[in-house]
Amino acid sequence: MIQGGYMGQILRVNLTTKQITKEETSDALVRNYLGGAGFGIKFLFDEVPQGADPLGAENKLIFAPGPFTGTKTPCASRMAITTKSPLTGAVGLSLTGGYFPVELKFAGYDALIIEGKAEKPVYIWIHDDKVSIRSAEGLWGTNTFDTQQLIKDELNDQNIRIACIGPAGENLSKIAAIINERRAAGRKGVGAVMGSKNLKAVAVRGSRQVPVYSDEAFKEARAVMLKAMKDSEVLYPAFSQMGTPMVVDAMWGLGIFPTNNFSATGEWDPVDSIGASVSATRKIGREHCYGCPVGCSQLKLARTAPYTGTLSEPEYETMYSFGGMTGVDNIDSIIYADRICDELGLDTISAGATIAFAMELYERGIITAKDTDGLNLNFGNHEAMNALLPRMVYREGFGAVLADGSRIAAERIGRGSAKYAMHVKGLELPGYDPRGAKAHGLSYATSYTGADHNRGYAFQEIFSVPIPYPVDRFATNGKGKLTKWNQDVRAATCDCPTMCAFLMDMAVPSIALENTANLLAAVSGVTLTPEEVQTVGERLNNLARVFNIREGLTKNDDYLPQRFLTEPLKEGSSKGSYIPQEEFEAMLAEYYAERDWSPEGVPSREKLASLGLDNAVATLEKMGLL
Amino acid sequence: MIQGGYMGQILRVNLTTKQITKEETSDALVRNYLGGAGFGIKFLFDEVPQGADPLGAENKLIFAPGPFTGTKTPCASRMAITTKSPLTGAVGLSLTGGYFPVELKFAGYDALIIEGKAEKPVYIWIHDDKVSIRSAEGLWGTNTFDTQQLIKDELNDQNIRIACIGPAGENLSKIAAIINERRAAGRKGVGAVMGSKNLKAVAVRGSRQVPVYSDEAFKEARAVMLKAMKDSEVLYPAFSQMGTPMVVDAMWGLGIFPTNNFSATGEWDPVDSIGASVSATRKIGREHCYGCPVGCSQLKLARTAPYTGTLSEPEYETMYSFGGMTGVDNIDSIIYADRICDELGLDTISAGATIAFAMELYERGIITAKDTDGLNLNFGNHEAMNALLPRMVYREGFGAVLADGSRIAAERIGRGSAKYAMHVKGLELPGYDPRGAKAHGLSYATSYTGADHNRGYAFQEIFSVPIPYPVDRFATNGKGKLTKWNQDVRAATCDCPTMCAFLMDMAVPSIALENTANLLAAVSGVTLTPEEVQTVGERLNNLARVFNIREGLTKNDDYLPQRFLTEPLKEGSSKGSYIPQEEFEAMLAEYYAERDWSPEGVPSREKLASLGLDNAVATLEKMGLL
Repeated sequence: MIQGGYMGQILRVNLTTKQITKEETSDALVRNYLGGAGFGIKFLFDEVPQGADPLGAENKLIFAPGPFTGTKTPCASRMAITTKSPLTGAVGLSLTGGYFPVELKFAGYDALIIEGKAEKPVYIWIHDDKVSIRSAEGLWGTNTFDTQQLIKDELNDQNIRIACIGPAGENLSKIAAIINERRAAGRKGVGAVMGSKNLKAVAVRGSRQVPVYSDEAFKEARAVMLKAMKDSEVLYPAFSQMGTPMVVDAMWGLGIFPTNNFSATGEWDPVDSIGASVSATRKIGREHCYGCPVGCSQLKLARTAPYTGTLSEPEYETMYSFGGMTGVDNIDSIIYADRICDELGLDTISAGATIAFAMELYERGIITAKDTDGLNLNFGNHEAMNALLPRMVYREGFGAVLADGSRIAAERIGRGSAKYAMHVKGLELPGYDPRGAKAHGLSYATSYTGADHNRGYAFQEIFSVPIPYPVDRFATNGKGKLTKWNQDVRAATCDCPTMCAFLMDMAVPSIALENTANLLAAVSGVTLTPEEVQTVGERLNNLARVFNIREGLTKNDDYLPQRFLTEPLKEGSSKGSYIPQEEFEAMLAEYYAERDWSPEGVPSREKLASLGLDNAVATLEKMGLL
Repeated sequence: MIQGGYMGQILRVNLTTKQITKEETSDALVRNYLGGAGFGIKFLFDEVPQGADPLGAENKLIFAPGPFTGTKTPCASRMAITTKSPLTGAVGLSLTGGYFPVELKFAGYDALIIEGKAEKPVYIWIHDDKVSIRSAEGLWGTNTFDTQQLIKDELNDQNIRIACIGPAGENLSKIAAIINERRAAGRKGVGAVMGSKNLKAVAVRGSRQVPVYSDEAFKEARAVMLKAMKDSEVLYPAFSQMGTPMVVDAMWGLGIFPTNNFSATGEWDPVDSIGASVSATRKIGREHCYGCPVGCSQLKLARTAPYTGTLSEPEYETMYSFGGMTGVDNIDSIIYADRICDELGLDTISAGATIAFAMELYERGIITAKDTDGLNLNFGNHEAMNALLPRMVYREGFGAVLADGSRIAAERIGRGSAKYAMHVKGLELPGYDPRGAKAHGLSYATSYTGADHNRGYAFQEIFSVPIPYPVDRFATNGKGKLTKWNQDVRAATCDCPTMCAFLMDMAVPSIALENTANLLAAVSGVTLTPEEVQTVGERLNNLARVFNIREGLTKNDDYLPQRFLTEPLKEGSSKGSYIPQEEFEAMLAEYYAERDWSPEGVPSREKLASLGLDNAVATLEKMGLL
């Protein structure tokens, strides 16, 4: 029985009927899904009808923090946002940290389920028990920073926390983000879903404390976790002081920092222009999410014209997407692009990668200045890159072609351009060339959200961490098993609880499952063994898989862009490496087998039953797949 | 004796010695100067040595709210910022409203005097009695909106109020502003003084209440004021719903809306492009200063590319400076320019007027694209206008030429350009062509701050209000007397107490003196007759005059740009009108005589003595002027 951590209530707001209801957070939900992505995907599976238009009233948007969020657990400030993705048609999951998720707990809720579609722009105002739907007609069109300030001013409370969309979400860009404070739930077009519901923002102010079941046990579990963090060789001082941008140098060192839309990985050295030491020259401070001792988010200030004075916090993935991918070596232009994306509410990875895609087409002559409204889209043209961003958001000229990511852009452009669109399931790739880190490739191919670095990040290949066992990053053998482990453990210890992924990658992978179990017992009184925690992750991956199958995805969607299967890396530390078709197929087969999925990637009846997923069994039965 | 309204303490922070001291707010100071500009100019006169470099450590920066600030007096949210202006070399006075001034009172202070110069960037943090000087090295270079958020985050209190400078102030632009919330103390380069002291911001949080001497008397005085406001024909609903931008139409109607650097007043109709009805299409809301029932500040959102989504609150003066003056008829570009100025901390009037000056030079061929780094500076080119703003702030290329306002730009350019620089004492003109409103001309010429609409605004010429008596806007006779009245009453009822100027202009001019006296008695127990209140204004104008004389200004600085004396208006409702030299001289002579100043503009010993300004007498004696 739940005795802490959880607030006991799930808030449901229907924007069509204006009904606001509250329901109990059930024990079964907690034991099987923990919170966060677990809650989100469970509700999504159960409540969003098959074939629902992601941008229609039937789709739902679920905000769910975890049991530790708002307690003194370090690095647990986060929440999962779950929806059917308009970008992929699959499960759309995006997490964010900062302060909004904590405030939602303080207001008394373990999740917020947003349903239906408002007639006119609105925002939801949650003040403890009082929940209302307010007009956002005046806010429509404002950028995310202004929106947050305007709502605080309107409600006359500067301590309100707000998650909102910018013009990108309003204009239904399928790569639109949701922004809270300076943080982004960036990927899979969650912002477009919010926009499709005419929902500009959710504002929250809470005054409750998150109860803790056993103060003593919590103190102990927390101390173990803090010690593991302190003992980490990466977390302090390096990661705390440099944050994710330090990964640029590391990935260059491994020969897998993608450049020029993955066409020149290993050939173009970014270290001297946008590497860690250059990033350091732009640093003016750092930001901590609630309760985080690390504070990895690095505030950067652009120092050269025409970007001088622009403030943002570009993460590694943004250095990759607006730097390496576009061939841009001007760090200040990346800081600027990051800021524009945050203000307009656009995912930096997908936006940069989509522009990089257009740049490759331009370089190859597949498109010309006639297509681009005169913009010279050669790799490296940061002015063109930044000029494109608002045009994408406002769907102006060539910007409209790129507005919904690379897959749809390729469809709009035609002319054989699709092979240069670097995505899986429509989701643009993150910044690790899988040719030199092959578990990454398998993870991109099989993640239920598309090419995602956050659903099963193979940190073993990046940091040489031998957990659960040592791996060779160029090998494909054994990567199926590894990927299952990574996906399940990541889901169980990060996406559901909801804990920061960097902990898993850099601090406590060896104790991640135990740590989660101990904290859960201490905070909520719910006792799961570490194995049972891992099973939560497996359950989630299977449920998400069946959701995707139900929505029409098949084995054919577990692919990698052809480039990785046919073009060996030409230079750098991973020179010569690629993933031949047969190697990819072998990895995929191993993965399916490890998961107890059919050769076509369909979960077995036994596996689903063992995970208690009777609904999923019924779904596959109905589809004639079991 | 003071028994309310005032907090009793003046805070003094020396950035050189790091000394923080507090002194009593004396009865004499209150009775003679009330607060705000009164306090500021008194301290400036007494404490800043003759010949002090405005951007040197000897200059001081004085923030002073008034006795009603923080009480329930409507429209009293304001404070005066006083310094020796780097733009004019004269008294620099700029007022701002919003919430910062109130918070300074809540913290317990009637004024903040900033002295000296920090070695490295700092900000001052005032938390009730606790006052500290903190490093702002990380904040240096950030824009004013980011600065405010970063300080709130650093101090972990979202309710802090902050006044700060942007890059313009840091870079010592002589037209740099100080920004608090979305409000600006824009004029006379007060931001550069702050920058010269390496002072990025002042952050305040207060928890005290402002005491009121007699609740009953206050209730009564307040009711009288609120009724006068309610009875105003202009204040509600028009001004409340449209704010100052509605003045565009009115000024066009009077034929005095300046266009193309005053070279085409009356010739270019702005109503259909940037007039009130167009402004209304961009309105998304309005903002209230603390305790203000009017809320005249209109939030505007740009709706067309490339400005789409930009939020700001352009006032009439900004519509004039970035609209009429530059010949720009694109309202969204004005909203954008306003935002950029607020973010970078630049005065919109001076910035727009300085660009307009450059445009006239360009049109006349005095400068060419070779001078402007290729920018086409024809009137109406809003893209060039907006491109110039950051270049001015960062002193890049031709931007460096314009960075310090039109007078210095003319010196830098030479080539006979000075005659097109529309300023008095270095301060760019506001948006009323004095050829069709001649008291405005006299006020511009004689205001101790330069061409300022806020030191003696002749509302009688604009709104046809017959207070203190009816006037003909084209006449010059009687304007000396009117200007003295306007300057003294404005100082006494707005700048010192510190009340919103719009009250005087549009709501309560007939009862302004009485209203001030009544509120003062009720709030603080200090009893002054309405005549004595007016004398406070006269005292201030005389003290400021002697300060300016001491700093080297003479009758020769009481001028108007030659254009107004030689070029009749060619079109519009004021067609044919101008101010011939002899008319101007007659107005000036009448003004000096009304003030009991010599024909050279030097206050008489008797006048100064009658105002209790013995220091001023001593100053003039020492200079051999008495």
